[in-house]
Amino acid sequence: MTHATANKPAWTRKHLLSINELSAEEILYLLDTAESFKEVSTRSVKKVPALRGRVVVTAFFEDSTRTRMSFTLAAQRLSADILDFSAKISSTSKGESLRDTARNIEAMGVDIMVVRHSAAGAPQNLTEVVDCCIINAGDGQHSHPTQGLLDLFTIRERKGRIAGLNVAIVGDIAHSRVARSDLRGLVKLGANVTLVGPPTLVPRSFEQLGARVTSHFDEILPEMDVINMLRIQQERITSSVFPSIREYIRLFGMNAERLKRCKPDVLIMHPGPVNRGKELAADVADGPNSSILRQVTNGLAVRMATLFLCQQAAMA
Amino acid sequence: MTHATANKPAWTRKHLLSINELSAEEILYLLDTAESFKEVSTRSVKKVPALRGRVVVTAFFEDSTRTRMSFTLAAQRLSADILDFSAKISSTSKGESLRDTARNIEAMGVDIMVVRHSAAGAPQNLTEVVDCCIINAGDGQHSHPTQGLLDLFTIRERKGRIAGLNVAIVGDIAHSRVARSDLRGLVKLGANVTLVGPPTLVPRSFEQLGARVTSHFDEILPEMDVINMLRIQQERITSSVFPSIREYIRLFGMNAERLKRCKPDVLIMHPGPVNRGKELAADVADGPNSSILRQVTNGLAVRMATLFLCQQAAMA
Amino acid sequence: MTHATANKPAWTRKHLLSINELSAEEILYLLDTAESFKEVSTRSVKKVPALRGRVVVTAFFEDSTRTRMSFTLAAQRLSADILDFSAKISSTSKGESLRDTARNIEAMGVDIMVVRHSAAGAPQNLTEVVDCCIINAGDGQHSHPTQGLLDLFTIRERKGRIAGLNVAIVGDIAHSRVARSDLRGLVKLGANVTLVGPPTLVPRSFEQLGARVTSHFDEILPEMDVINMLRIQQERITSSVFPSIREYIRLFGMNAERLKRCKPDVLIMHPGPVNRGKELAADVADGPNSSILRQVTNGLAVRMATLFLCQQAAMA
Repeated sequence: MTHATANKPAWTRKHLLSINELSAEEILYLLDTAESFKEVSTRSVKKVPALRGRVVVTAFFEDSTRTRMSFTLAAQRLSADILDFSAKISSTSKGESLRDTARNIEAMGVDIMVVRHSAAGAPQNLTEVVDCCIINAGDGQHSHPTQGLLDLFTIRERKGRIAGLNVAIVGDIAHSRVARSDLRGLVKLGANVTLVGPPTLVPRSFEQLGARVTSHFDEILPEMDVINMLRIQQERITSSVFPSIREYIRLFGMNAERLKRCKPDVLIMHPGPVNRGKELAADVADGPNSSILRQVTNGLAVRMATLFLCQQAAMA
Repeated sequence: MTHATANKPAWTRKHLLSINELSAEEILYLLDTAESFKEVSTRSVKKVPALRGRVVVTAFFEDSTRTRMSFTLAAQRLSADILDFSAKISSTSKGESLRDTARNIEAMGVDIMVVRHSAAGAPQNLTEVVDCCIINAGDGQHSHPTQGLLDLFTIRERKGRIAGLNVAIVGDIAHSRVARSDLRGLVKLGANVTLVGPPTLVPRSFEQLGARVTSHFDEILPEMDVINMLRIQQERITSSVFPSIREYIRLFGMNAERLKRCKPDVLIMHPGPVNRGKELAADVADGPNSSILRQVTNGLAVRMATLFLCQQAAMA
Repeated sequence: MTHATANKPAWTRKHLLSINELSAEEILYLLDTAESFKEVSTRSVKKVPALRGRVVVTAFFEDSTRTRMSFTLAAQRLSADILDFSAKISSTSKGESLRDTARNIEAMGVDIMVVRHSAAGAPQNLTEVVDCCIINAGDGQHSHPTQGLLDLFTIRERKGRIAGLNVAIVGDIAHSRVARSDLRGLVKLGANVTLVGPPTLVPRSFEQLGARVTSHFDEILPEMDVINMLRIQQERITSSVFPSIREYIRLFGMNAERLKRCKPDVLIMHPGPVNRGKELAADVADGPNSSILRQVTNGLAVRMATLFLCQQAAMA
């Protein structure tokens, strides 16, 4: 926790809405906090009392078992009380009623609401009507900040740094909140980001965010330190210019052959769940370059840090 | 906790089935207990060990996310272990099988069963076959005692008393367990209750329970201290004498115009969720006279008191 | 805990996959441990800190509310953190993807995974890819070890011993994992097991496992100490040689008349839920010979022992 100064606390946000809003210093402070929480997970009693008596509600208006489990386990490890609010989209997807729902949940004494919603901006929207902490667990194609932070954490853990690294993100960038969150965080921390995919899915406009854009995967392989493979959304691929998934995989899939052309210590990432044999070959996914399960493990630490820091800021 | 005497404990019930069965003294004792629990919710660690090691099962045979959440949070705050039993109606709605289900759940070491069921009398029925505490969380059109109690709590909190107040309940009284529970409690504590709605939905027979019955909402507005607006069940309204919802709202909806004709400190209540712009205009729902979110908050304290007192009585 | 020796711990398994793999000594050690845990359930604070800070995930790929509740309550009583993973069969039933799911769950820091799956061998399969404890909560028609163990526990509790007892298991043996688990455990502990049912549902091949096979229920009634009635799966019965359920019940149902021909202290068991009036008459199910609810209660103690011993072995 080396990034705080005597005069100003290093983290003052009670909400985490996107990586865009964070400074490089804030990101690093959160990663450092996550590192100290990761140690907790190695103990025999994997709990700290940091959020004892606090109430965390997971409000997932869009399904995501894995992310919800990760937040739940993170909250349990901080000794919080946790409750899941599984909403039927029908009754809550419209603006006013989502706000009503959130205000009702908050009135039950909730301290932190972890929100996933298909509408970009929904978590931000809720901060206008509730006082409790809002953590964005994915909103439309906009942002998925804890995924971005756990990817940064994993890269730093494996590579020792982020600044100066060459990082590729491969796939359907245009529709991916993971890609957006990773890109923002990586650029802030000084990595060189290359976005790879067919032009329909990786528009040139992303260059304005500080990335290089290319559709020639094979050309950039040798120079990459990290390659993050996005999950194929089959319906999106086939509705683009591509004749078939098979053709897409031929151009943009990661496999043993392509891995040979990479640096020996290249880090292969994937936000999960993997379509084995499609964007990522099974042997690469399970091989020594892969960080897929480590990303899952680190997600817990990053989410513990997020819950803890936001709650601390809310009390300050 | 001022209502206990040296000779007789103030609360001896291990079940809470309806407000009908409670004496005014018992109601006030429960409200006092809830008041002391409400203080717990203002602490930074919002927990007391009162039910540590006790097991509470929420057995909701009819869906109700909000009430279930409120009971769950109340039980967590008392340090109980909580488990949800989400039954498919098909396999459990028939008499014998519901009893079997309850006896099986109890055999797992359950101390308190919070039951919601579409059949009036189902919770009462279960007290004949299990030894654990049964808390009625709403049974058909019969009773919803914790809703009634949280409404009484909120009125007392905002008005300082209940006896002598003029309270209107507006809407589909005939089919509402909330109206029945509120009416019983208010009459027991000395309030003057007026039931308001179209004659098809507010039968004269309710006068036998001590209420005044009227279909002229506008006439009674000026004298009311409290107005409790019931949620419109659209299908019920249109199957009654009314040509349309619009016509119903014109006669029985609460809005800014009607609010002007009320006492300045009139309390506007609603059991939630609100149909904004229908039975209740949005500006009134969010205005200073509204107690909607406070009702939600108080529900937690009332349910903590209910779980605590019934469990205490079961152990005595 | 009398079965441990100085040189070798009495329980060294971190997984519980089936009763087949257990020695008589191991079974008895687990039953003894369960007995000591049963005492915990009689305390006012029904908790021990044995699994504090440990994470138990119930991964039920086939629905079973009761078994899941029992495991959850057992884990709560051991102070573990518990999370349910309710998987949609579609996305996880295929080999590789089930393995991926399990590895992802484990990567979140899970210590014990309680797995139910429609495919025989699925839990065993998972032990090849994860390091955490795997507890089989029922896999296809293969095994349901904790049900077998709780049946053994209940018989020993009521009869004082298992060796030498005459035990009948009645019904659709061929398709029942409960029957298989009970049979294996009973034979290991020296009981004389008779399997009863129509030849299509009780193949002669079961004799190789040490059981007697018969289709004459009435003949064996007088000599039995324990009769375990399996639940009728209606579709299975009618697709066999039987003209009707009624005919099946006439030959293989337990009722007051048949009970009269049994020993006065015969123990009538059923894994639940009972089809009252079908395989088991209501008066027998609720009568003094029945151990149905006691089986449910004992299930908790047996599952506490299972979770505790496997976790201990994993740490050793």
